Amino acid sequence: MTLFPESHQDLLNAQVASLATIGRDGYPQVTEIWFLYDNGELKLSLTTSRLKTRNLRRDPRCALFLLDLANPSRYLAVRGDAKIESDDDYTFAHKLGAKYSADLEEYDPPGESRIAVTIEPKNVYAVDMSAG
Amino acid sequence: MTLFPESHQDLLNAQVASLATIGRDGYPQVTEIWFLYDNGELKLSLTTSRLKTRNLRRDPRCALFLLDLANPSRYLAVRGDAKIESDDDYTFAHKLGAKYSADLEEYDPPGESRIAVTIEPKNVYAVDMSAG
Repeated sequence: MTLFPESHQDLLNAQVASLATIGRDGYPQVTEIWFLYDNGELKLSLTTSRLKTRNLRRDPRCALFLLDLANPSRYLAVRGDAKIESDDDYTFAHKLGAKYSADLEEYDPPGESRIAVTIEPKNVYAVDMSAG
Repeated sequence: MTLFPESHQDLLNAQVASLATIGRDGYPQVTEIWFLYDNGELKLSLTTSRLKTRNLRRDPRCALFLLDLANPSRYLAVRGDAKIESDDDYTFAHKLGAKYSADLEEYDPPGESRIAVTIEPKNVYAVDMSAG
């Protein structure tokens, strides 16, 4: 299992992260997302209709970018593969929603469903350009 | 020429941006960088030895992600092609450095050289999830 460095543990509990996926046209696509650091793993809850979901189903290679918003020369970049599991009953969505005091099921339009995505890290790159 | 929306103009003058490139292994690579909004164009100054430079030389498809650090549900994602020009005499590096009151030439180790990168936008995606 890939370990996240002690120096950047706080970022694992940040509010938002940037997710980079590969689009159908081969261009990287970046969006800001909610995430949950859960039992040592970085996980996302995505709706099935979103472009990033379609991207990850076609190509699981992705990067999760955790930026220290108060000090943006400090960040953690995790490259890895998205392991996708269905979350039709919102079990994981509710768990992630609890971090944000939000009910994700309430947000979703009728007919929408959710997947739980676990980032399986291939490479972790911890940067702190502000460190002496 | 692609126009950046009026609502997100302030982000074009932010201090940092995230750059997503495609690595040799096909994974997206994300790093935080300095940039300059110069005459309507988004430009970067990169040293020739960096991984992101090698990535862009192999595959110009990239994304520049401008996040409102004070309100990270607001951002501008620019996907495009990196047009690379040599900047051996640091003409552009000095121009970008002026934004940061920094002399980039002083930072670079002997033997290093620089390129100027212009992002030629293919798609601009402006998000504000905090807007009512």
